[in-house]
Amino acid sequence: MFESVLVANRGEIARRIIRTLNRMGVRSIAVHSEADAGLPYVREAAQAVPIGPAQPAQSYLSIDAVIEAARTSGAQAVHPGYGFLAENAAFARAVMDAGLTWIGPSPDAIERMGDKINARNLMEEAGVPVAAGTREPATDVDHAIAEAERIGYPLMVKTAGGGGGIGMGVAYDKDGLVKAFETAQRAAARFGGTPAILLERYIEHARHVEVQILGLADGTVVALGERDCSVQRRHQKVAEETPSPGVSPELRERMLAAAVRAGEAVGYRGAGTVECLVDPAAQDFVFLEMNTRLQVEHPITEMVTGIDLVEQQLLIAAGRPVTFGAVEPRGHALELRVYAEDPKRFFPGPGEITVWEEPSGEGVRVDSGYAQGDKVTPFYDPLMAKLCVWGADRDEALERARAAVAAFRLEGPKNNLPFFAELLDRPEFVSGDYDTGLIARMRS
Amino acid sequence: MFESVLVANRGEIARRIIRTLNRMGVRSIAVHSEADAGLPYVREAAQAVPIGPAQPAQSYLSIDAVIEAARTSGAQAVHPGYGFLAENAAFARAVMDAGLTWIGPSPDAIERMGDKINARNLMEEAGVPVAAGTREPATDVDHAIAEAERIGYPLMVKTAGGGGGIGMGVAYDKDGLVKAFETAQRAAARFGGTPAILLERYIEHARHVEVQILGLADGTVVALGERDCSVQRRHQKVAEETPSPGVSPELRERMLAAAVRAGEAVGYRGAGTVECLVDPAAQDFVFLEMNTRLQVEHPITEMVTGIDLVEQQLLIAAGRPVTFGAVEPRGHALELRVYAEDPKRFFPGPGEITVWEEPSGEGVRVDSGYAQGDKVTPFYDPLMAKLCVWGADRDEALERARAAVAAFRLEGPKNNLPFFAELLDRPEFVSGDYDTGLIARMRS
Repeated sequence: MFESVLVANRGEIARRIIRTLNRMGVRSIAVHSEADAGLPYVREAAQAVPIGPAQPAQSYLSIDAVIEAARTSGAQAVHPGYGFLAENAAFARAVMDAGLTWIGPSPDAIERMGDKINARNLMEEAGVPVAAGTREPATDVDHAIAEAERIGYPLMVKTAGGGGGIGMGVAYDKDGLVKAFETAQRAAARFGGTPAILLERYIEHARHVEVQILGLADGTVVALGERDCSVQRRHQKVAEETPSPGVSPELRERMLAAAVRAGEAVGYRGAGTVECLVDPAAQDFVFLEMNTRLQVEHPITEMVTGIDLVEQQLLIAAGRPVTFGAVEPRGHALELRVYAEDPKRFFPGPGEITVWEEPSGEGVRVDSGYAQGDKVTPFYDPLMAKLCVWGADRDEALERARAAVAAFRLEGPKNNLPFFAELLDRPEFVSGDYDTGLIARMRS
Repeated sequence: MFESVLVANRGEIARRIIRTLNRMGVRSIAVHSEADAGLPYVREAAQAVPIGPAQPAQSYLSIDAVIEAARTSGAQAVHPGYGFLAENAAFARAVMDAGLTWIGPSPDAIERMGDKINARNLMEEAGVPVAAGTREPATDVDHAIAEAERIGYPLMVKTAGGGGGIGMGVAYDKDGLVKAFETAQRAAARFGGTPAILLERYIEHARHVEVQILGLADGTVVALGERDCSVQRRHQKVAEETPSPGVSPELRERMLAAAVRAGEAVGYRGAGTVECLVDPAAQDFVFLEMNTRLQVEHPITEMVTGIDLVEQQLLIAAGRPVTFGAVEPRGHALELRVYAEDPKRFFPGPGEITVWEEPSGEGVRVDSGYAQGDKVTPFYDPLMAKLCVWGADRDEALERARAAVAAFRLEGPKNNLPFFAELLDRPEFVSGDYDTGLIARMRS
């Protein structure tokens, strides 16, 4: 195993990774911007290296700054977490060029999956179902209109290079397409991405379900069950659960098999996620995209399988042989992303945390990035904590989630705990029969 | 299910029970002394009733005060937790006489098991192995000396009515017996118990292992695995684990079967624990005593089985049918009792908690009774929290325990976290090959 690992991230995910490093006896090295110097993950790491000012471009997104920190701290390997540089192939290459181990899939796999059109085509070749859509990216609106006629409305419009729902929109007709196309291109420009736009047949009342895979050191790919991520605001996930209440055992088997094929098709190594859209009525699915990193919502898979996914990432990157017996998930788990945002319209509301008391007890796990007295600054994603609960069945998990939301004492920044109280009592959610339009309906 | 349940206890166990009540939608009613008005369990209950001054005899031990609180609050049932009145048959009867449901075994079962000699004889009749010992309690020292000659040294000397290790001692010869006898009688007098003393053949290098049983509403008794409680200071448990590293599968099977017989012999209903001494070399065991209540260390059984034991207690008391499939424990769990006491000599050290940040994350569960700013008062047991960890195997559990101990931020009262850091690195403990003399050896 590595003697030391640098975590090229911040907040809850840096803290999460550092926990596993610490318990495995690996020297954990945190990096932090000036704004984050006082956060728990910095304190809990064996060593902490300042890498620049609060602005992400000059700290967490700066390949040079992170590589320099790895060099000076004597790190043997780099774990990127999620977001920031986690799916940046150039960063992965820079890590390897510096003689360090990259804890993630090959830069090649990152690139092939990062380009969504390429990924889609590759998946289709591997026999993974994909939605009808553009096989080439559209860079001008006329091309997009022509493609739209061929594919048929409604359509999902998204940037070929982007992620996290940024710039995504749905078009029901030509006018809508023109608007959505322009929105997506503006978003791409703002985040420095390619202006290429991707169209895909939009499945109404779809569920967003993803499969966790692990590409092992010996080339085997295993699937560790699915997560339902249909609770979304502005195409961004806020609550996830496993198993998905909208997936039958038969569909699950097909999805997991397809995810394994997807991983094998790119020679995938490490933890990855195959995201799919599920049509619950037809009990069918199409490939959406692949995330070549640890996912925000990985804890719920850990809760039902008992597998530490960060440990697996480390073992795989170190070339250690791992053998899995049949993975039999137990019970039901739920994640609620506690954001510093108002619970009605979900606008970010940073500020100082004056009261912070996490719930605990049977079936409760909190992955948090902050403690009482810390400030949530406007520079980063306003995720404060992931409140995860486990129950022997979905009802018990929901009950525990309600009790844990009520017991979470949080004052200072606006936060979406009241939204979760509302969600957990919403009949559509309680029944399990919901889709990605749930929050829009709650707020209409 | 009950509409409302009064929890006749305080601190972490009251909070633990209230969590399950709250999540099941049962109105939770806390009782509290003047000293405890500001504690989390009082705040988290749906209703809180003051029952008297700080002195336990006038509040948590006052049957009248608790029954009155149940009456005025409209409780339908009473959960006693552990300690205080939990194994007081008169209290159980008073609850039932007040027309309320007692969440626990029958007063008759409490009494039969509370008298240790009677329990021992009953177990022997039921075919449960018992250590050679007095079949009648000794009330004068000459009788004890005569019995000792018959049984043979070394001997465990304990009060027939007591519990929690109070007054217990080991005698290796006649002089030692006389001293231990007097110590035990003084302790019995101090705690208002019977002066009757019990002698039992003392097994050297023994492990203290207990089996969790549930007596279901239909009369079936099930065993939910064992817990190893050999880490003791002054005959009091401070750390527990499951499964026991000193119990072979074959011995486990025999112990669980014996525990079921023990439960059946008294027509046991509810959660109970059959405590045994295990001779690891011989892979054999003898019955020690039965605890007719929820055990402090119940969370580790919950972590490996996924069963909420408090929920089971409620279901059983409400006469709900429960069916268990084969209970297959998963992984390994460990509990560390975080006491307000000095980590060297274990003297209580109450005080105000100025910093309190519980560890969290994968595999960690903290059952705590306090929050930052609360005072640990000298009136009650100085248990502040139970730090529980789960791992896929014992090594992972130990690693997580070490990381969690290091991450627990606790300032104000003296506490035994440094002792746990020491324990978790002690080769004897790490190997799993330890016995009840472990702490004495660490401190000699």
